[in-house]
Amino acid sequence: MTIIGNLLIAESEKRGTNGEFHGIEAATGNPLPVSFGGATPEDVERAASKAWAAFQLYRETDLESRAAFLETIAEEVESIGDSLIVRAMAETGLPRGRLEGERARTLGQLQLFAKEVRDGRFQELRFDGADPSRKPAPKPDLRLRNVPLGPVAVFGASNFPLAFSVAGGDTASALAAGCPVIVKAHSAHPGTSELVGRAVQRAVARANLHPGTFSLIFDTGFEAGQKLVADPRIRAVGFTGSRRGGTALMEIASRRKQPIPVYAEMSSINPVILFPDALKNRAREIASAFVASLVLGAGQFCTNPGMLLALDGADLDTFTQTAAELLADISAQPMLTPSIAKAYGDGVAKLERHPEVRSIASGKTGSAYEGAAALFETSAEAFLAHHELQDEVFGAAGLIVRCRNLAQLNEVVDALEGQLTVALHIDDGDQEAVTSLIPKLELLAGRLLVNGFGTGVEVSPAMVHGGPYPATSDGRSTSVGTLAIYRFLRPVSYQDFPVILLPEPLR
Amino acid sequence: MTIIGNLLIAESEKRGTNGEFHGIEAATGNPLPVSFGGATPEDVERAASKAWAAFQLYRETDLESRAAFLETIAEEVESIGDSLIVRAMAETGLPRGRLEGERARTLGQLQLFAKEVRDGRFQELRFDGADPSRKPAPKPDLRLRNVPLGPVAVFGASNFPLAFSVAGGDTASALAAGCPVIVKAHSAHPGTSELVGRAVQRAVARANLHPGTFSLIFDTGFEAGQKLVADPRIRAVGFTGSRRGGTALMEIASRRKQPIPVYAEMSSINPVILFPDALKNRAREIASAFVASLVLGAGQFCTNPGMLLALDGADLDTFTQTAAELLADISAQPMLTPSIAKAYGDGVAKLERHPEVRSIASGKTGSAYEGAAALFETSAEAFLAHHELQDEVFGAAGLIVRCRNLAQLNEVVDALEGQLTVALHIDDGDQEAVTSLIPKLELLAGRLLVNGFGTGVEVSPAMVHGGPYPATSDGRSTSVGTLAIYRFLRPVSYQDFPVILLPEPLR
Repeated sequence: MTIIGNLLIAESEKRGTNGEFHGIEAATGNPLPVSFGGATPEDVERAASKAWAAFQLYRETDLESRAAFLETIAEEVESIGDSLIVRAMAETGLPRGRLEGERARTLGQLQLFAKEVRDGRFQELRFDGADPSRKPAPKPDLRLRNVPLGPVAVFGASNFPLAFSVAGGDTASALAAGCPVIVKAHSAHPGTSELVGRAVQRAVARANLHPGTFSLIFDTGFEAGQKLVADPRIRAVGFTGSRRGGTALMEIASRRKQPIPVYAEMSSINPVILFPDALKNRAREIASAFVASLVLGAGQFCTNPGMLLALDGADLDTFTQTAAELLADISAQPMLTPSIAKAYGDGVAKLERHPEVRSIASGKTGSAYEGAAALFETSAEAFLAHHELQDEVFGAAGLIVRCRNLAQLNEVVDALEGQLTVALHIDDGDQEAVTSLIPKLELLAGRLLVNGFGTGVEVSPAMVHGGPYPATSDGRSTSVGTLAIYRFLRPVSYQDFPVILLPEPLR
Repeated sequence: MTIIGNLLIAESEKRGTNGEFHGIEAATGNPLPVSFGGATPEDVERAASKAWAAFQLYRETDLESRAAFLETIAEEVESIGDSLIVRAMAETGLPRGRLEGERARTLGQLQLFAKEVRDGRFQELRFDGADPSRKPAPKPDLRLRNVPLGPVAVFGASNFPLAFSVAGGDTASALAAGCPVIVKAHSAHPGTSELVGRAVQRAVARANLHPGTFSLIFDTGFEAGQKLVADPRIRAVGFTGSRRGGTALMEIASRRKQPIPVYAEMSSINPVILFPDALKNRAREIASAFVASLVLGAGQFCTNPGMLLALDGADLDTFTQTAAELLADISAQPMLTPSIAKAYGDGVAKLERHPEVRSIASGKTGSAYEGAAALFETSAEAFLAHHELQDEVFGAAGLIVRCRNLAQLNEVVDALEGQLTVALHIDDGDQEAVTSLIPKLELLAGRLLVNGFGTGVEVSPAMVHGGPYPATSDGRSTSVGTLAIYRFLRPVSYQDFPVILLPEPLR
């Protein structure tokens, strides 16, 4: 399981010659052994060409073969063994336990999509029988199925080096749909990416699939990724990252001769709303759970609770004080990359300097590569007046917004941008207030939770990890859970086809 | 059932003061009685505001009420009686039989969506049970349903004054999904639009719905429509029309603070492919059916067969000669509007002047408001070299592309833009050739037909009236058939909700 730093294009590997970069040890900022060569436009071209050729075969694989392929990927990723965890720990600074859990999640995702493929419902098979005697016109025989869109470009996420990266959710759902995948590895974990990429490459070979079904490229900047999205053979994009990155890809995709869908999961501050009765009864308990969620994984989750809304008063003071005390004890944690650590530091500094924001507590400070948790508060008036307070600070920073009353809390909710999650903390006495708010929240976010926090995203049929723009580029979709497969499908109707010409599932 | 020329905004009506225009008698170009006032920005604002208010109630209507409402619309449209047909005949130049059929189709669509609503499957209800004892983390209770996107702007189509206009497929599917609708009437049939708009307004009142559930506006240019698409309360757009119009709306929608989906059905030349054996056995028969489809409704269908591909040779000569003879006998037919007639004339003239295109036959000529059918041919080489030959000429003009062999026919198929339909004419001996082509065609179009023509779009569960860009703005959807409802929905997940807080269908 050596790491060489090569591009994996279909069955081959080669050194990228478009600049080079190193994996960086997250905890120290030091370069790790082995440099990675960036893909040239020709490399992207070749990967796309191979993917297109592979698509013609892969899209018609029978469900059992496709499901088995996904399971084979899981086996191959698992077989990398501990070297995967060790490398991922070094590159991301995430602890062993988290990464082992994430690996299990990654394998589970692949297996879940294998099950979804075998189930076959995603094909949306529909049959409208003919009626030659119908008046005024005979009724034709119509059959429908979903077909895959074509090769998909997947951009690995910095914060899930396994579960939303090379063989992560986007890749699993695209492959499940029948789409070859070209992954642009995230530069935050290139070695991890190569290890997993080789595992997928082996799985493709073991499954006797066209080697173009999967490729992995590295990019020293944005050039290769942008070229990939612009390539006419790429038919959809999966992305998890910043709003700037996501909207840049949306722009490229919409300027193509044939625009393509971009599924970009971008940014969310995941409002937490504490209702009065819950706050009165359980201020300390919720504060403890809130801090735990806020600092989990150094706060580097898309669903990190970056904002908390509650009514001003003694109960909120209790909450705030408890949270502040707990937070002060939290050690700084290494962040995924030096630049993420710097961006987090900048975001926190901006809040500290903000005239309308008060710093409540800071966690223990650490090195330049670590993020110290931070808790702030502001008034609803200030939040409403300063749109920048809605900006996501990626990391363990939270902003408490004190509202004068429920009407003002409603106003703040009205002013919020689209979110991935909204978490509601309620007790019996809050029912009326929360009931009237829920319809609004359904329009605001993809997932609503009661008495919990958005961190911890279940991979299951009823999960929505999505939400209205700018949480994602396309609020009609989810990037986690089995519904994610539908992002890469479109319906085709077959009219009056002789049985022999029909695709097998429609016969 | 008088026509006044008023905007219908929620429960009220008012004269639009942003300029005025008349309905035009299609057959003569003469203005019809009554002028229509264009909506001001304030009118659009008011309609959007009312729609947003209505949405908060309408989206939670129970399925039975919503289905009954759709049926009530059908009743009210039917109750307009013959004055609707008479006015539509005058405004569109379409014959009585066609419009009566289209009315039946319109009522049928509303009733079909009522059935779809009652069925309830569009809600996509999903339940993942909790497992508090799961390790390492308890499994939450997760439930999912689709919720409507919000108010939808519908742009009436010129060529379906009933079935794709005020109470047409876009309106029916949006209302079925739980979205209020604001229709921008097509200026080609404003009186027809007003009559139907009043019918919908009555249905809203009869169903005791919030009056903002439906509004109808007129636009003297593009201002009101553009303002509508830009309005933050509008959450999706349904459009059927030109590529220029559709892409302009896509552009506006993507520039919004919160971009929204645009479902624009734009342009298609609907290739017809004649395979050698079919051509040999049935050249005359297919020619006759082709001409009938080409000239149906003066060729003013999205699925009009504007292009035909076949192998050069004596059989194609027979086909061409038969088609030419039949076409020469076809009378000119009034077109929908003087400007459509002019655009058709210009398109035909352009083909006539094209150095690589040969005119084969023309139908009988008529007035300036009528379109004479026209048939052209060119070589595959020329078609491949001149991209403008793919431009849709909206009307009864067809272009036969002579290919030297199947390989060249394949090349032409590869060069085609996204289409709504592709029709294949085959006999037993063609099986091999067609089998190898179908996978390509699945990527090219939303609907494939064997031994038929795309005109005549069944409204049913297995219909896809859609296709890759530029046939539509979003190849993942259909604007005809029950699948159309999914365009206006998005999934929301509810985690660990107490039953009492869950939306009723998820309890």
